[in-house]
Amino acid sequence: MPHVVILYTGNLEAHTDMSGLCRGIADAMLTIRAEDGSQVFPTGGTRVYAYPAPHHAVSDGGAAGRAAGGDGDYGFIYINLRMGAGRSAAVHKAAGDAITACAKAQLASLFEHPQKHVGLTVQVDEAPGQVYDAKHSTLHPLFAKR
Amino acid sequence: MPHVVILYTGNLEAHTDMSGLCRGIADAMLTIRAEDGSQVFPTGGTRVYAYPAPHHAVSDGGAAGRAAGGDGDYGFIYINLRMGAGRSAAVHKAAGDAITACAKAQLASLFEHPQKHVGLTVQVDEAPGQVYDAKHSTLHPLFAKR
Amino acid sequence: MPHVVILYTGNLEAHTDMSGLCRGIADAMLTIRAEDGSQVFPTGGTRVYAYPAPHHAVSDGGAAGRAAGGDGDYGFIYINLRMGAGRSAAVHKAAGDAITACAKAQLASLFEHPQKHVGLTVQVDEAPGQVYDAKHSTLHPLFAKR
Repeated sequence: MPHVVILYTGNLEAHTDMSGLCRGIADAMLTIRAEDGSQVFPTGGTRVYAYPAPHHAVSDGGAAGRAAGGDGDYGFIYINLRMGAGRSAAVHKAAGDAITACAKAQLASLFEHPQKHVGLTVQVDEAPGQVYDAKHSTLHPLFAKR
Repeated sequence: MPHVVILYTGNLEAHTDMSGLCRGIADAMLTIRAEDGSQVFPTGGTRVYAYPAPHHAVSDGGAAGRAAGGDGDYGFIYINLRMGAGRSAAVHKAAGDAITACAKAQLASLFEHPQKHVGLTVQVDEAPGQVYDAKHSTLHPLFAKR
Repeated sequence: MPHVVILYTGNLEAHTDMSGLCRGIADAMLTIRAEDGSQVFPTGGTRVYAYPAPHHAVSDGGAAGRAAGGDGDYGFIYINLRMGAGRSAAVHKAAGDAITACAKAQLASLFEHPQKHVGLTVQVDEAPGQVYDAKHSTLHPLFAKR
């Protein structure tokens, strides 16, 4: 049920380890617990996909960045978690905070880069407009209670 | 109006016929009828896009799969239909079931593969948060009533 | 906060300037004003990502297009703006109209192509199902009020 999609400007490909970020976010998600101590995101249903955009445009296109001593080749990373309905606001915040902390840590060198200007946004959506849900899996049974 | 987006782990590219799955899902959508017998998804507006993710992470990363005799290189396929508001729950279910049945049939060999552990999720969203809709098309008129 | 995602059939790659369309849409967004004259979309948070789909299916697959003298290789472009909650219907319409006008102008030759049948849909979503939002940026401060 839960999945994360990362959309990012393709110019960041050489400056990031996106496979590592995917793994880090998945691991962070698997640590989230509900009020009763149970795992929020089922191990067999947790996945993260990252997509570099071959075409993009960000902000003013670079003028302000160059004026500030940067290279003007802005980057942006957008991380979206879609999760099922019915969890508390505290769980939403815990999940969002865990993903944000992971991304900030793994992307730290990018945000400290003296010539790069980069934005990161993390959002969590609760089953937006969802009216149907079906699953089929040979993966989920690996983690079923025995 | 209706469109389907398929997000999948890039490691499935060699094990699937995603162009064929796109076509199969589009064909399945065009068969869906409303309570009055009319076609739910207009032919000229029906489209399916499939995107392999060059970076991804799934589940525990492979340990449980390898322990179960698999190769630990998990795959995941997420199929999302976005459709306009105003249809009944029965139509939502018919559309979702048709897509799920198509995907399960076309991906059968993947789910039967002795070393692969793969998940499939199909969800239908009804115009989530939508506040604006505009169209422009040289395609739609091909199917206009004459 | 605001971002645009363009999903399009990969067969349009050679017939479009998608980097130019991304820039045009970002520029159009930055002109949108609220009722009080303030800029709706913050410069440092505005970005557009465009993704060609390597696999796709559109409409009837080409038969009607070929019967009408086209090449039957249909294209489709879907543009989605996700924006924060709390704006008026007039602002939603202004933003959607600006993006639609930009896309129609920049894609005009595609829609006038005698053998191509192509669809365009533009939709605006207001924070669909959103329950969490976090930002981290070295880009946004470039445009902070001084």
